[in-house]
Amino acid sequence: MIRKYTYGNPIETDAVVEKKETQTGSLPYFSVEKTETVKFSYIMDPADVVYGLGENVRGINKRGWLYESRNADEPNHREDRHSLYASHNFLLIDGKDHFGVFIDYPGILTFDIGYTKLNELVITPREADLDVYIIEGESKLDIVKQFRQMIGRSYIAPKWAFGYQQSRWSYMDEEEIRDIAKQHRDRKIPLDAIYLDIDYMERYKDFTVNQETFPNFAEFVKEMKDQNIHLVPIIDAGVKVEAGYQTYEEGVANNYFCKNVKGEDFVAGVWPGDVHFPDFLNPDARKWFGHSYQFLLDQGIEGFWNDMNEPATFYTRERIDEMMEDASNREWDLDYFLDFKDKVSVIANNPEDYKKMFHNMNGERISHEKVHNLFGYNMTRAAGEAFEELCPDKRILMFSRSSYTGMHRYGGIWTGDNLSWWQHILLNIKMMPSLNMMGILYTGADMGGFGADATEDLVMRWMEFALVVPLMRNHSALDTRRQEVFRFENVDAFRKLVELRYGLIPYLYSEYMKAVLYNDMYFKPLSFVYTEDPFVSQVEDQLMVGESLMIAPVYTQNAAGRYVYLPEEMMMLRMRGLHDYECRKMEKGHHYVEADLDQVLLFLRPDHLLVLGEAAQSVAQLNTEEFKVIGFVREKAEYVLYDDDGYGKDYENCSNYTTITVDKTGTWKTEGGKELNLQIELYDTTGKRI
Amino acid sequence: MIRKYTYGNPIETDAVVEKKETQTGSLPYFSVEKTETVKFSYIMDPADVVYGLGENVRGINKRGWLYESRNADEPNHREDRHSLYASHNFLLIDGKDHFGVFIDYPGILTFDIGYTKLNELVITPREADLDVYIIEGESKLDIVKQFRQMIGRSYIAPKWAFGYQQSRWSYMDEEEIRDIAKQHRDRKIPLDAIYLDIDYMERYKDFTVNQETFPNFAEFVKEMKDQNIHLVPIIDAGVKVEAGYQTYEEGVANNYFCKNVKGEDFVAGVWPGDVHFPDFLNPDARKWFGHSYQFLLDQGIEGFWNDMNEPATFYTRERIDEMMEDASNREWDLDYFLDFKDKVSVIANNPEDYKKMFHNMNGERISHEKVHNLFGYNMTRAAGEAFEELCPDKRILMFSRSSYTGMHRYGGIWTGDNLSWWQHILLNIKMMPSLNMMGILYTGADMGGFGADATEDLVMRWMEFALVVPLMRNHSALDTRRQEVFRFENVDAFRKLVELRYGLIPYLYSEYMKAVLYNDMYFKPLSFVYTEDPFVSQVEDQLMVGESLMIAPVYTQNAAGRYVYLPEEMMMLRMRGLHDYECRKMEKGHHYVEADLDQVLLFLRPDHLLVLGEAAQSVAQLNTEEFKVIGFVREKAEYVLYDDDGYGKDYENCSNYTTITVDKTGTWKTEGGKELNLQIELYDTTGKRI
Repeated sequence: MIRKYTYGNPIETDAVVEKKETQTGSLPYFSVEKTETVKFSYIMDPADVVYGLGENVRGINKRGWLYESRNADEPNHREDRHSLYASHNFLLIDGKDHFGVFIDYPGILTFDIGYTKLNELVITPREADLDVYIIEGESKLDIVKQFRQMIGRSYIAPKWAFGYQQSRWSYMDEEEIRDIAKQHRDRKIPLDAIYLDIDYMERYKDFTVNQETFPNFAEFVKEMKDQNIHLVPIIDAGVKVEAGYQTYEEGVANNYFCKNVKGEDFVAGVWPGDVHFPDFLNPDARKWFGHSYQFLLDQGIEGFWNDMNEPATFYTRERIDEMMEDASNREWDLDYFLDFKDKVSVIANNPEDYKKMFHNMNGERISHEKVHNLFGYNMTRAAGEAFEELCPDKRILMFSRSSYTGMHRYGGIWTGDNLSWWQHILLNIKMMPSLNMMGILYTGADMGGFGADATEDLVMRWMEFALVVPLMRNHSALDTRRQEVFRFENVDAFRKLVELRYGLIPYLYSEYMKAVLYNDMYFKPLSFVYTEDPFVSQVEDQLMVGESLMIAPVYTQNAAGRYVYLPEEMMMLRMRGLHDYECRKMEKGHHYVEADLDQVLLFLRPDHLLVLGEAAQSVAQLNTEEFKVIGFVREKAEYVLYDDDGYGKDYENCSNYTTITVDKTGTWKTEGGKELNLQIELYDTTGKRI
Repeated sequence: MIRKYTYGNPIETDAVVEKKETQTGSLPYFSVEKTETVKFSYIMDPADVVYGLGENVRGINKRGWLYESRNADEPNHREDRHSLYASHNFLLIDGKDHFGVFIDYPGILTFDIGYTKLNELVITPREADLDVYIIEGESKLDIVKQFRQMIGRSYIAPKWAFGYQQSRWSYMDEEEIRDIAKQHRDRKIPLDAIYLDIDYMERYKDFTVNQETFPNFAEFVKEMKDQNIHLVPIIDAGVKVEAGYQTYEEGVANNYFCKNVKGEDFVAGVWPGDVHFPDFLNPDARKWFGHSYQFLLDQGIEGFWNDMNEPATFYTRERIDEMMEDASNREWDLDYFLDFKDKVSVIANNPEDYKKMFHNMNGERISHEKVHNLFGYNMTRAAGEAFEELCPDKRILMFSRSSYTGMHRYGGIWTGDNLSWWQHILLNIKMMPSLNMMGILYTGADMGGFGADATEDLVMRWMEFALVVPLMRNHSALDTRRQEVFRFENVDAFRKLVELRYGLIPYLYSEYMKAVLYNDMYFKPLSFVYTEDPFVSQVEDQLMVGESLMIAPVYTQNAAGRYVYLPEEMMMLRMRGLHDYECRKMEKGHHYVEADLDQVLLFLRPDHLLVLGEAAQSVAQLNTEEFKVIGFVREKAEYVLYDDDGYGKDYENCSNYTTITVDKTGTWKTEGGKELNLQIELYDTTGKRI
């Protein structure tokens, strides 16, 4: 059951698609205090667990910190940060009470979850104009499903986007990209995509291609696609100010850009130098910007990533001029020097600049500050709405850096500029189920880490987790150590791991699609499945992946294994590759499990099935009819394998759903869907191969 | 056995006190390559463990990263850093070979320990003038002991410095300090010291006291000492340039400051504004600076901390002028803005500035760059040498931020500007045994974290580890959340934990003193004790503390316990306080152990004894004759309890050593030393209380 409570005059965010009536009674669970704004307080029991907040720092259990919804271009994902790139204002309280709360509010909002006082949860929006939804249900998962139902079906990526993807800021020209493709293909490392970071453009102008470095872009896109490699260009939020540049001229002519205090087009500095920001909150501007992607679709592009859309600003000229004028008139003593350094450090993404930027929302002039968290969402919505018109029958890969609830309908996200830190593998693990709660299912972190220098062991361990993450992309920053896997010593081990990914795709894609279609979570905390187990809420470094698997990634350097908690007896698969693994039955409880640097630990639930395909060099080349099915069957196990052509949108077609049944003797059959050729690898309850 | 190999013409560092003859043969273990400098390479087996490097980032096992000896004012102890404040060029290789290597070299040096290639260890000094010591022994501990013997006995802190200490940047005046003392005393939270950060000085001038905020300093020192609270002032490396200021005038008049390229006194900006740096490598200057501490000793001060002695520089005027002139003549486009930001970011601690600073070493002019890592060491040596003359019969508390091997004879260190991060608890744990290998025994991290905002649970968990750390100091930075424990909700829990510390002091002090006197390690990795256990080299989050205890701190937020590995059967003590604990015998092997937020996990080895005293409000008030002895005795257990007056230096006096013997029936006796009154709390091998 969902109840909606309205305070003041909320700005419509379009987060919710199943509209609810506003309740008249008082808000349950919380005490509400009217201050200059409004403050919602809830007293937690010491053992209560608080889930939610999607993309943010810290644990699956969010207790013990102050979080802020303030979409931020924040490359330092340190544990003392309060915000990252997104605002996902949903919490799920699990303890003496069980309920979800969604705060639909586009402005700045804080969640003090036991930061000021260990047992007090306080939610404070900057202004008292918002909708609060209280969601009650039978279970944690039921509450999440109701929330998801209300906010609408999640974005569905094309199947090729489940392949391995290689990125770098930046591959500079055709020749470099050809080489990256060749290095993978020569070594038989599967690959489905190579990314174009900002340097593919002409002077960082959206919807342009640098003619010197990519003289025959459409041909080059085709050349790569003939190898089953997709090129995925980046699109930035800011449009370069440059006379004669089409996007700029169109935006100016039609008043599609955000305005400054004087009503002129707002100017900030980003990669292209001075830019204007399209007013994505204005439906006309959104439509115009979305249709601009046509330029790249026409050249054969089938996927994009939207960046810098918090929006990030490096500077405004006013702020620099002010700083420099002041600096040249001052005595440079220590105090002033420190003051000056502080000033330099807040030039980028300055909240005062956001206050001076204005949107046109249905004819009304609204300060950006009040709707800050909607910007990236609506940039991606612009693209998503346009794709529905431009290519209604084909899925286009789309993911964004910044987001707000609602954007999950138009694209996924990547988790932004992480670092080559071991602890960021763990952060990646923890963030995935939190994002899934928000409906963000097509997601992943920069594998190997974006900033800082990676080591071979870090990349390998990270890959072992990324193997089961929908967006499996190796991405790294300018001036950091190269981390394409072919550059390291143990190329064979990396190849076997990527092959394992491709063997897992039938299962992973099936689980992803079912999670989307049934408002389910692809990644779940163990506590969402084993609801009666008092220990599992403690487990933050293992996840359920779909209905059959639990994973326990190794994320510490020089570790030859890790502790694993099994909430029931399971079959451990310790895998070096698709054809190089060992199975062992393990009892419910705590275990220390060894895992060499190149070994992945998967755990198969009893009476569940794992469908494994053969590897291929790309998703397009996967055999979709012959599978190995690994089972650990007490009586009978059933698995619904979802598959489709990977491009179209006929998701409900019953031929997509094949029910596989296996009994404990290994007898199998399929119903509905497709004819499959299965090889059954069965283990009995003692762990012996049947 | 220690062998010394000399390359080129090394600069004397005085790291080594037991001088060795240079060998003529070739360096064992390493292949030596002459490049512009010299490169030492060693091929590791995949399972080899590399210990060492003292104060640096990452694990107890240093494999998998590139480390640099370059003493750095580095407040971001991120895992991608290469240096912190110290250079401790000792490695211990444990695998197919077993040896220690100490590189005595005062300049910049890199240790590539499997960073470039997973199995290759490469050591590269910037210039080929150095001594290399190869140390072989019967065991890891034996190698460490030989190394320690060679570099000389570690600094010994006064006993009061094992009490609980409270710090903050800064307690501004007498009134604030009085209040901090009162808040602790009123709530019966034991306390032995309050720290004076930079604001106690007059305009940040060393060896001055601000007369407005501390008008009667000597009286105030006495007022505090009457409460058994020591005031511990900070001393910075830079001496303010200010006409008439005694230290400045003396330094200038006697040419005691480092010089610039023109032979004038070198100027850089630090807290006081422009400063000169005393030339600590010049024995006359060292003596002069050391004797300046007399000013504070005379006012009753008995302890100091030496800071900013990498040396840290915030700026040089030349660099700022250059930057500003350039800035005012340039077009402020994006490229220049980014360039400018980069320039601002490297103004502090710029290596080019160090190149322009010069020392006078025995009449020879030497660029600071070549001896950079000796600076902090010799600042603290200045003080230590002076104290030997000024108060030869009394120990003075002294610890430093920056260090190099050799400094351990004159003071301890604190581990610098960490952050209120959970992972910095773990870093603290890992760093302690590495520092102990280097002879740095009086050490600790800023409990609760220096930078960023702490939470109550973080401070409590951190304290649970800090309980056994010699330097147990709660310290935090300007503008961060206050973290004195009386400010939190669960003051009782904090008090019980601090009381537990005071009850542990008899054991901790005894173990510290024996570690110093026998060149032993106070904190050991488990692998140094359980040398035959193949698993223990994996354990990086448990430590041996002295001869009887193993600890397993909880360092993750919202955790209600943790995994613990027991290398033999042990007695677990799960403690909320000195009189609130539970004992349980646990088998060798892996365990998950619960620990509430206010519970500490200690593990007592069989046939070892834990001597516990009663709590007191200060170390001076501890009862040193009545103890509880907890034992887990199969036949007989013996423990040598070291104690002394805590101030004097008659360490070898046999009355300091009392041998306690307990047999399995609980019969006890003492030999030598003092008459003790013991209460025996014995458990049999089934874990039952006898």
